[in-house]
Amino acid sequence: MVGGGQLARMTQPAALTLGVRLSVLAASAQESAAQVVNGPVVADEKSYADLRAFADGCDVLTFDHEHVPPEHLTALETAGVPVRPGSGALLHAQDKGVMRARLGALGVPCPRHRVVTGPDDVAAAVAELGPRIVLKTTRGGYDGKGVWPVDADTPAEAVAEPFRAGVPVLAEEHVDYARELSAVIARSPHGQAVAYPVVESVQRDGICVEVVAPAPGLDGELAARAQHIALTVAAELDVVGVLAVEMFETTDGRLLVNELAMRPHNSAHWTIDGAVTSQFENHLRAVLDLPLGSPAARAPYTVMVNVLGGDLPDVYPTYRHVMARDPELRVHWYGKGVRPGRKVGHVTACGDDLPVLRERAWHAADYIRGVIDE
Amino acid sequence: MVGGGQLARMTQPAALTLGVRLSVLAASAQESAAQVVNGPVVADEKSYADLRAFADGCDVLTFDHEHVPPEHLTALETAGVPVRPGSGALLHAQDKGVMRARLGALGVPCPRHRVVTGPDDVAAAVAELGPRIVLKTTRGGYDGKGVWPVDADTPAEAVAEPFRAGVPVLAEEHVDYARELSAVIARSPHGQAVAYPVVESVQRDGICVEVVAPAPGLDGELAARAQHIALTVAAELDVVGVLAVEMFETTDGRLLVNELAMRPHNSAHWTIDGAVTSQFENHLRAVLDLPLGSPAARAPYTVMVNVLGGDLPDVYPTYRHVMARDPELRVHWYGKGVRPGRKVGHVTACGDDLPVLRERAWHAADYIRGVIDE
Repeated sequence: MVGGGQLARMTQPAALTLGVRLSVLAASAQESAAQVVNGPVVADEKSYADLRAFADGCDVLTFDHEHVPPEHLTALETAGVPVRPGSGALLHAQDKGVMRARLGALGVPCPRHRVVTGPDDVAAAVAELGPRIVLKTTRGGYDGKGVWPVDADTPAEAVAEPFRAGVPVLAEEHVDYARELSAVIARSPHGQAVAYPVVESVQRDGICVEVVAPAPGLDGELAARAQHIALTVAAELDVVGVLAVEMFETTDGRLLVNELAMRPHNSAHWTIDGAVTSQFENHLRAVLDLPLGSPAARAPYTVMVNVLGGDLPDVYPTYRHVMARDPELRVHWYGKGVRPGRKVGHVTACGDDLPVLRERAWHAADYIRGVIDE
Repeated sequence: MVGGGQLARMTQPAALTLGVRLSVLAASAQESAAQVVNGPVVADEKSYADLRAFADGCDVLTFDHEHVPPEHLTALETAGVPVRPGSGALLHAQDKGVMRARLGALGVPCPRHRVVTGPDDVAAAVAELGPRIVLKTTRGGYDGKGVWPVDADTPAEAVAEPFRAGVPVLAEEHVDYARELSAVIARSPHGQAVAYPVVESVQRDGICVEVVAPAPGLDGELAARAQHIALTVAAELDVVGVLAVEMFETTDGRLLVNELAMRPHNSAHWTIDGAVTSQFENHLRAVLDLPLGSPAARAPYTVMVNVLGGDLPDVYPTYRHVMARDPELRVHWYGKGVRPGRKVGHVTACGDDLPVLRERAWHAADYIRGVIDE
């Protein structure tokens, strides 16, 4: 697995359960996943030579992020390395312009959009898609970075900002959504696929903070449509592994695809404790072409809340307190240094009383990060 | 953790979830746990110098077996190393003679027994405890090794066998038991304890092959008594970590303690998938003096069946088949070479229909090991 973050870290329990040796290419020996695998490879994920050398020790190459340059992925494939998901699929999670064009061709509902080539082009985009639009860098954005809301009153300097990186920019209509949903599936090379229950995710400042599985009160027909979209995208793009499709549920009952991720995804961390087979295990089963495990939920509701680094440099005392207060709570820790806003762990509560589960999970996350003190 | 077997391996997911770095002292780099931790230490668990050097890199020392010489444990404690469970407790899991004497003093019900000093002493033991008795080596026995049934007709040569190792031998009455139960608890240094549901375990040739949680049809009062025995033993012996108390349920409704283990135990592997907090996580929480997690079961029944190495040198094709046949089954693989009779993995099924769960788990285990082919 290329990438040493918490996604690779949480893949290790699945790997050892399956009897699979997980190798990790990490940027440093201190990274979250590098701490918990045998012989992590510290190397540069942007270097073809480093990737090639790492791949020599692996049967299959997969990823905990989308940052490997597409040209390296195709070169690895040409060299005979099994890359899963393949470069042709992964490009749609790396480049929002490519993704929008392809989903449009497939008839998958998306926000109205156009590629804008420079600041001068934005006024026309506002006229066509506005009054409010969102500019997004087509490459390299994540967790709210690389997204800029714009309208006719936005100062010229702010409008110019998204173009500074020299990367193509996508203009999209501002969507009045009721909430955000995520449909997560896993798909194997020979086309077997499983779909997890569709969840509701809540973002703050572009960062996922809470996931409720299944999405409360979601119309059954809409849930099936969300899963069908994810399965269709996976099949058409030949995705292997986990695919997360983030969607807007609009106030008028439509689904519009926002983002794709082709790796284990924050919106399915709940599956570690809340599903028969976790997304991490199904990602591995898929990329190794093993039969997939059941994605069924183990409880009526599971609530996952991310723990973001707060102002407390040492979270250990609050972490202890939370364990003592709620012995049924599942606390997951990523072994990362604590910085404000950084994802350093998550908590999960499973059961049948949704308001109580949400209260327990939020209390724990807020207490750990020092937002509340009782 | 001293010991590189599957118990240490299955502790790694708990460690990384808690944000704890698990170091492992293993006999070789190929051992089950050595494969899945960062920088396993290959060293000799019988060497004080090796143990001392390993302990220097750890905050707390714990174990996946009972094979560290007691004198090394006390020397480590004298040197200031936090050893959990402590040498004074662990001795009762290392020496059956010490264990029997102590449990007797505590009034914990055990089979009638006496220490025998040589073959000449056995006839008297048969006369006192017989007609059938069991000879057990007081140190070093496990998985059916170190146990010899004896009666008045046993040939002299067979009677002499248990004494060859030069270790004291315990003679115990043969118990007519209805079944074997196991009460597993975890206890922290300041005395917090949690008790898992009492399970039924089934042995073949002295090796655990199946565990059903909770023990089907177990009288509530008897279950409470079994848990009380385990909690009492833990408190009186000052056990820190997981304590498993294996018991006989006799045909006349009594409980007799058979064995103690002070580490994660085969009779609680079901907790990985079947309990809110696994025995491995609670072992770590206990030895690190963190608050303990809920031991509650997540399903009405959980069935665990061990996968023992059969005649098939390569179990991979059958393992694939089992995953395809039963997507809800949990398959755990230890990364060990397959040899007949060796524990190489286990399977777990959770649900409410016990006969169906047993059929699924046994089918999978038997299919993987090549005992059945459809």
